[in-house]
Amino acid sequence: MPSTRYPRPSERDDFGRVMSFTDAVFAIAMTLLVVEIGVPETIEGASDDPGALLGAFADKGPLIFAFFLGCYVIGFYWAAHHRFMSWLDAVDRGFVLLTVVYLTFVALLPFPTGVLGEFGQNPISVTAFALNMGAVSGMETVLFAYARRRRLFREELPDDVYRWALGSSLLPVLAFALSIPVAFVLPLLSIALWFLAYPLQVVWTRYRPAATGRYLA
Amino acid sequence: MPSTRYPRPSERDDFGRVMSFTDAVFAIAMTLLVVEIGVPETIEGASDDPGALLGAFADKGPLIFAFFLGCYVIGFYWAAHHRFMSWLDAVDRGFVLLTVVYLTFVALLPFPTGVLGEFGQNPISVTAFALNMGAVSGMETVLFAYARRRRLFREELPDDVYRWALGSSLLPVLAFALSIPVAFVLPLLSIALWFLAYPLQVVWTRYRPAATGRYLA
Amino acid sequence: MPSTRYPRPSERDDFGRVMSFTDAVFAIAMTLLVVEIGVPETIEGASDDPGALLGAFADKGPLIFAFFLGCYVIGFYWAAHHRFMSWLDAVDRGFVLLTVVYLTFVALLPFPTGVLGEFGQNPISVTAFALNMGAVSGMETVLFAYARRRRLFREELPDDVYRWALGSSLLPVLAFALSIPVAFVLPLLSIALWFLAYPLQVVWTRYRPAATGRYLA
Amino acid sequence: MPSTRYPRPSERDDFGRVMSFTDAVFAIAMTLLVVEIGVPETIEGASDDPGALLGAFADKGPLIFAFFLGCYVIGFYWAAHHRFMSWLDAVDRGFVLLTVVYLTFVALLPFPTGVLGEFGQNPISVTAFALNMGAVSGMETVLFAYARRRRLFREELPDDVYRWALGSSLLPVLAFALSIPVAFVLPLLSIALWFLAYPLQVVWTRYRPAATGRYLA
Repeated sequence: MPSTRYPRPSERDDFGRVMSFTDAVFAIAMTLLVVEIGVPETIEGASDDPGALLGAFADKGPLIFAFFLGCYVIGFYWAAHHRFMSWLDAVDRGFVLLTVVYLTFVALLPFPTGVLGEFGQNPISVTAFALNMGAVSGMETVLFAYARRRRLFREELPDDVYRWALGSSLLPVLAFALSIPVAFVLPLLSIALWFLAYPLQVVWTRYRPAATGRYLA
Repeated sequence: MPSTRYPRPSERDDFGRVMSFTDAVFAIAMTLLVVEIGVPETIEGASDDPGALLGAFADKGPLIFAFFLGCYVIGFYWAAHHRFMSWLDAVDRGFVLLTVVYLTFVALLPFPTGVLGEFGQNPISVTAFALNMGAVSGMETVLFAYARRRRLFREELPDDVYRWALGSSLLPVLAFALSIPVAFVLPLLSIALWFLAYPLQVVWTRYRPAATGRYLA
Repeated sequence: MPSTRYPRPSERDDFGRVMSFTDAVFAIAMTLLVVEIGVPETIEGASDDPGALLGAFADKGPLIFAFFLGCYVIGFYWAAHHRFMSWLDAVDRGFVLLTVVYLTFVALLPFPTGVLGEFGQNPISVTAFALNMGAVSGMETVLFAYARRRRLFREELPDDVYRWALGSSLLPVLAFALSIPVAFVLPLLSIALWFLAYPLQVVWTRYRPAATGRYLA
Repeated sequence: MPSTRYPRPSERDDFGRVMSFTDAVFAIAMTLLVVEIGVPETIEGASDDPGALLGAFADKGPLIFAFFLGCYVIGFYWAAHHRFMSWLDAVDRGFVLLTVVYLTFVALLPFPTGVLGEFGQNPISVTAFALNMGAVSGMETVLFAYARRRRLFREELPDDVYRWALGSSLLPVLAFALSIPVAFVLPLLSIALWFLAYPLQVVWTRYRPAATGRYLA
């Protein structure tokens, strides 16, 4: 029996597939976070007592906070990956393999996020989350450096633009690293330090080479 | 060793990637709902007794109802997003970041859906679900307003069409808001109120500017 | 600050998005089935005793069987959807909404599959699975009929081809319906009846109008 | 009411859909692995005691090791599938059905990975993982042979290139098969044997026909 044939479109899209696999891993890691909150099955008091259920929600407070923290972090890293890929003109086999390593750390994120929700005051939770995010950020830097070395950018980046962008991609690594020693003194303050990447970015932008916009829009 | 190169197709599709990430988050949130039903592991009586298993299914009734409610709500919001995106000609970086915030609320939905299945008679369950859906709907309105301000629509919307469509996107927010006080008196009626968005939409359509179809098909 | 703009490619792909959402729901439903097997956390005897772990695997036998059954069923329905969509030239808003209803039943499948793994000898498990699959199959028939009524096929189907294909899509519904009464007498035989769709299909193919291949490859 | 029509782009992409379904199954199997680690809910000692949480992490050590092992294995198999598909010019219905069988084994992987994390010293865990991976690898070989028989490659493969590539795809099957008897003597060594595929590949590459690069880049 002849079998219907589905031809490849004239434009090959092996490039796009790297993004769609990445998108799926990010989307699942983000959506799985909700499983860690856990639906309460019993509450103290009658099942239709608003106060009792509100109490159960209050107990879930730190887990819900960890859910939003994890979601935004994963979401904004996805947005950063979206931006990065928009600068590229091609990927190669080595890039595909490095992407797999990068996604391994993204897939792990629901674990430290869940631990942070359960033990938010514990410096080890904060450290675990910071290390995992640092690994994601670090792999981003590796992908960036690899892409330049293999000439995967649409236009070849001048040295100063490249160095500035590399520094920029290291700012979150710096913020995560700084937060670890602080976690052993003041766990909650150290979570706040993760957002230090934003003001650092503002300062760093002052040193941005004029040509950056042309290469990295 | 040279590494095989996979070039980007001539037509860039950074636009499409925003949709594929969104599709994945919606699909996972919808499919994860089934986990909250939970497969019974033991039943009262012999494991091959139809009556005993039917009894276990009956106990799962509210959870199965919550599954279908959650699925339709998520599915129809996805359909609304599909329609909305079909009107746009471009997205920008700000749009991508707002989409991440929007998807955070979509990813949270399995939690209040599960709570609703366990404590359907409790006004707090109904309130939590209504608040979460209201946040999803509200972010839809924000995306709509942002898209117009940044001129992302295929054709620029006239003022009257824009105002009418903005009102239209607020109708579900209104229905969800109305249901919250009612939940404290009659929880089940308040769930029915969520579907009030449909008749409200019918009424609202009467005030639709004649040119709407040309811009928002 | 100006925000980078990502334009839509010249060829709009609102059509493709319906498939990518469908693909994601099918993929997740298929992959979630593995969660129902459940990893044993303790075994009777030493943790490195092969016999003890083999015993634990044997206890999981019905769950593993249900996993494969569920995977093939979902996988082959996905393949059927792939084939169906390859015949279409367009979708419309009504088609999108019917697809959401169809996917709701696909997303539910891990629940009866899990129940079947736990209570394979119970006629109610078999009935629940058959009803769920019947609903998926039935919605496929609805999508097929809708697509013809709205002229969404690449070439308009002649009446005889349409009637034959509609009958073809109802054969699994027939097999699932027949299995329900049998389940109350011989549960395992009734599972075998689900595969009756294949020989029925062979017989049905004899009545295939000659022109079918031209329209439905 | 007329319903908005979304036409298919001029280039049909039934080919691409096979990849996007595959990508989603791989991405979910990879991301679900994190669920098997499990977030600890209580620790011995105060909830903010770093030593106690560190102890809980140490207990999770084998599960975290199994997570990374599973992620890399799934990730590198995805990369191999990405490469394989880049050589094809078309798929057909038979290929789609074989892909479903292949994905069934991919979807099962989180189960033996979880068992390996719980019972890493047990030869049966190692055997189960090796059998599952062997099935994935074996189905890859089947897809490769099928694709050649149905002339789905961009350019028809000469006999020597085909035989060499088929042998290459069987090397992991060999490594997994060898590891099973070893598992009953030295479980941890047998895990190391899985990586034997890499040195075997290096040796095998010496026998690579000169024309290979032209057909299988």
